[in-house]
Formats: sequence, structure tokens, C-alpha cells
Amino acid sequence: MVVNDAEQLLLQAKQANRVALAKLLSIVERGGQPARELARLVWSLGGSTYVVGITGAPGAGKSSLTDRLISQVRNRLLEVAVVAIDPTSPFSGGAILGDRVRMQEHATDNGVFIRSMATRGHLGGLALAVPDAIRVLAAVQFPYVFIETVGVGQVEVEIVGAADTTAVVINPGWGDAIQANKAGLLEIADLFIINKADREGSRETRRDIELMLEMSSFKGWIPPIVETVATEGKGIDEVFQAIESHHEYLGRSGEGEKRRQARILEELNHVLQAEITRKVSDLISEPSFAERKAELIGGEIDPYSLALELLKFAVD
Amino acid sequence: MVVNDAEQLLLQAKQANRVALAKLLSIVERGGQPARELARLVWSLGGSTYVVGITGAPGAGKSSLTDRLISQVRNRLLEVAVVAIDPTSPFSGGAILGDRVRMQEHATDNGVFIRSMATRGHLGGLALAVPDAIRVLAAVQFPYVFIETVGVGQVEVEIVGAADTTAVVINPGWGDAIQANKAGLLEIADLFIINKADREGSRETRRDIELMLEMSSFKGWIPPIVETVATEGKGIDEVFQAIESHHEYLGRSGEGEKRRQARILEELNHVLQAEITRKVSDLISEPSFAERKAELIGGEIDPYSLALELLKFAVD
Repeated sequence: MVVNDAEQLLLQAKQANRVALAKLLSIVERGGQPARELARLVWSLGGSTYVVGITGAPGAGKSSLTDRLISQVRNRLLEVAVVAIDPTSPFSGGAILGDRVRMQEHATDNGVFIRSMATRGHLGGLALAVPDAIRVLAAVQFPYVFIETVGVGQVEVEIVGAADTTAVVINPGWGDAIQANKAGLLEIADLFIINKADREGSRETRRDIELMLEMSSFKGWIPPIVETVATEGKGIDEVFQAIESHHEYLGRSGEGEKRRQARILEELNHVLQAEITRKVSDLISEPSFAERKAELIGGEIDPYSLALELLKFAVD
Repeated sequence: MVVNDAEQLLLQAKQANRVALAKLLSIVERGGQPARELARLVWSLGGSTYVVGITGAPGAGKSSLTDRLISQVRNRLLEVAVVAIDPTSPFSGGAILGDRVRMQEHATDNGVFIRSMATRGHLGGLALAVPDAIRVLAAVQFPYVFIETVGVGQVEVEIVGAADTTAVVINPGWGDAIQANKAGLLEIADLFIINKADREGSRETRRDIELMLEMSSFKGWIPPIVETVATEGKGIDEVFQAIESHHEYLGRSGEGEKRRQARILEELNHVLQAEITRKVSDLISEPSFAERKAELIGGEIDPYSLALELLKFAVD
């Protein structure tokens, strides 16, 4: 029944029905059985969607960049979807929604689909939801999907792992931050963008990144550094060219296929975690568990022993 | 063998041997079988340790506050342990280590034990490690444990859940951030600290918090708001009094017992997750899994179906 609904929506979404597509992504976001059914449905439908991750600290100018990159794709008469990850931590500040508004100038363009997803709720939820959302967008045959994250935590790094090319956005004067986060940056960046490059310190920041790249032992692809002033549209052509170069490199070197395989295994991992969580909550909510729970709270049994017991019990 | 080692270390740690205590916490942090054995060992040993969570955005002044609160405890001739959670995101900036240094003025005081724990690695790991670390510190009979987190994500919120009293540190001028994160703040805060209260906007920030509290329907404890200038030691007495009032309230209202029980069930949940995850990862590394893996990568089976299949084997 649910699957039939999803199949119907998918059919409509493929005919550029954005309302149907939005409904599909809501199914993904809500999770649970319908999301699993949908994920199974789109699993094998994916086309040749290219996924670009755009990440960086708040205020780096990610949304302005994404906005300009959308135009690049549209100039090529291709369609593009943007998944913007909203952090909903109690302390993240309120600037993010304001950023989003900027992209809304594409809102009337049916060739652009923009969707926010919140990191609220359980982390594992989002780690699953983002790859599933990408698969839905791939099934609908978007040639490009952009994922924008504020990149302040492990979750965001995991999400970025779903991208083919990850651009890290940095601003002039961030030398110390680069120095402090070398390992993480080198792990995820396929491309560095120095945005607001008309500001003071741009040259030093480039040198900091270059130095970091020189000190590391890259094989194959060395992340290029592109300077942009996104608000004025400067350097955007170069960013898009760098993305296309990386795309070409991934195909030529076999690295793309390696990444694809790693991603699938990572997805299996996430699915397993989610299934395990479900299993555990089933176990705990069983009536026969009530007595043992009292003993646990009373200190008569420790959670380690009880966990083993519950797992054994699950067999019978 | 390992247990005997842990027992020995625990004995030494109880005799104020800080090196032994540090070793115990390393066992907790590394996880695996030794950590589980240790957790089982200390499970029932806990004394009447009171756990205070101190959380807030980077730069709010948490470490300065913690530093002053340590002195408050020491003035009462009591011992205190601090667990500082280090976020290891690629974008967190490098300020955190600098903050930690400030607390090191207590480093020569054997009545103060300071320990950093990193959020690197899997999130679930830390969710388990922090309560276990607290239990070790309780077994060693620290009357107070402070947990300091930068509070930028769901993980930190979960960690804060291990505290009896959670103080949220805010600075003047953060009205927008308060507004944007109302739900999260109301969920975790037992106490609001406006630090750097000598700065402009302090009164407005207080009003923002008061308004937020008025709009919500609190029963029982209404989080007090304390203004501090931690670097000058101003307002610290009031913070400590607020913590003690909340402590007293938890006891009187039965809320403390309710929280304790919820925490134990949460721990069981985490332990169960960890156990099942372990079994699944054993399964994945088995040679017999190689064939299924190839089918997954080849698109012949989706991760959802494979996950269910693996789980069936794991629980049997």
C-alpha cells in the first residue's frame, strides 16, 4: 500500500512534479517502515547523478556559492537538486535560515529543487536519510545534486562522505583553523575554495593550504585551490571546472568506483545500526522485561549482564 | 586477568593514586572487553557523586567557569573530577586546547582530577564511555564530577544527560541564538549562566531567557539565571548555590530518582546497541560474508534486505 503510494509519487516525480518529489523526500526524512520501503524501491534505479558536497564553517559563504553553482548548472540547461543540511543543535545560532533565503531566487525555476533536511533527532537517522534522499533524486534523474552542510561535526563529515566531490569553503584569515584541523580537512577535501578572496589575508590562507598539501603525501588527485567572491560571481567558472576535472579524474583513475563501493558498505553499516536500534527497542518494550528492569534499577543486575541475557532471550 | 588488573588499579585509585585513576579512564576510553569488565566491576560501587554538566558554545567561558567552580569545591575541602569532552570535528577551531590550559593551575592539586575525552571515533562509543567514566569516578568517591562539553551537537546533549544538574553558559548578545534554539535549551538547562555579564546586552539576554521560561510550562524547578564574570570570579558563589539548590530540589521532589532510573535504562540501551553492533561487525568480517558483499556492490541485493539477513544470523 505504502509502496504503491511511493511508486505513484516516483512516477509523478519523474515527470518533473516537484510536489511529488517533496513528498518522497518527506517519507525519507520521517524514516520508519515507509522510508525503508522507498529506499528499497529506488536502490537500483539510480542514474548517473553527480553529487557535490559543499561544506565549511558558518558564515563562510556556502549558500552564496551554491547559489552561483546552481546557475552554472542551469546555464548548461541541466537540472539540479540541493539538499541543505540544517543543524538543529541547541547552540548553532539562527543565521542559517537567513542564508537559505538567498537561494530562493531559484525557487520559481522548476529545473532547481531545493530541500532542507534537519539534523534533529537521532544522528543515525540523518546518516541514513541523506544517502536515501540522494538515491531518490538520482532515481528522478537529476544530473547534479549539491549537498550543503555547515560542517561543524562528525555527522556532517559522514554526510559529506556521500558526495563524489567535496568542496571545503574557507575564508581569508582562517590560517589557525586550517592548522588545527589539518587531518580532517585533508580527509574530506577534493577542492578548496577560498571565498571572500577580496578580503585581506587571502594570499596567506592560500599559502597555508598549499603548505598543508605539500606536507601530506597525496597520491593521484591533489585538491586544487580556487579563489572566489561568491557574492559577485567571481571565480565560479573555475570552481565548476575544478569539479568537472575531479569528476573526470574519478572516472579515469578508478577512484570513483572505489568510493562508490565504500559508500555502499557504509550504507549497509548505517542500515544495520538502524535495524539494531529497532531490535533493541523491541526487546526493551516487551512485557517480560518489566521485572528485570526493576532489578536493573534496584542495582541487583548490571546493564552488561542484562544486555547479554536479553540478546540470548531474543533467540527463543 | 584484565579484571584483576582493573581491581588492582581501582584499589590504588581509591587511595588517591591519580596515575592509577588515569589508567582506569584510559581503559574506559579504549572500549572493548576490558572496558566492559571494568564497567561491570564499578557498576555497584558508586557513591553519592554529584554530576554537574557545563555546556555552551565555544568561547562562552565554560573553562573559566569550571576553573572557578573547582575552587568552590576545594574551598569546601572536597575533591572534584573534571571530564572535558573535546570535539574533534575538522571545523571546530583550535581554541579548545588553549582553554584547557587555564584549568591546569589546579594540576598540582591532588584533590582535583582533570581528564579530557575525545569525541573522535564512533559516537556511540562516547555515549557509553562518559557514563562509565562517571561510574569509575564515583567508585573512587569523588563527591563532585564536572562534565564540560562545547555543546554543538546531539552527542553533547546526550552526554549532558548523564549530569544531575546541567548549566548552560550563554553570553550577552546571544538573543537570536536563544530564540532559535529554545526547544533544545529548555530540554537540557537546569540553570542558565550569563557569563561575561559585564558586557553590553547582558540585561537584554536575561530578559530573553526570562521570556523563554515564562512562555514554557515548567513544573517544579524553574531554571534560575545567574550572571557571572568568570575571569574575575564574579557570581561564582551564586552559581554554586544554584547548583546546590537544584541538588536539594532533585532529592526533595523525587525528580532525582526519576532521572537516575531514566539514565540506567539509557545505559542499558547503549550497552545493548554496542553488543549487537559487535556481533554484526564480527559477522561482516567473516569470510563467508565476502560473497554477499560482492552481491551488494553489484546491485543484486539492497542493504536493507542484507541487513535483515545479517541480523538474523547475529541474534541466533
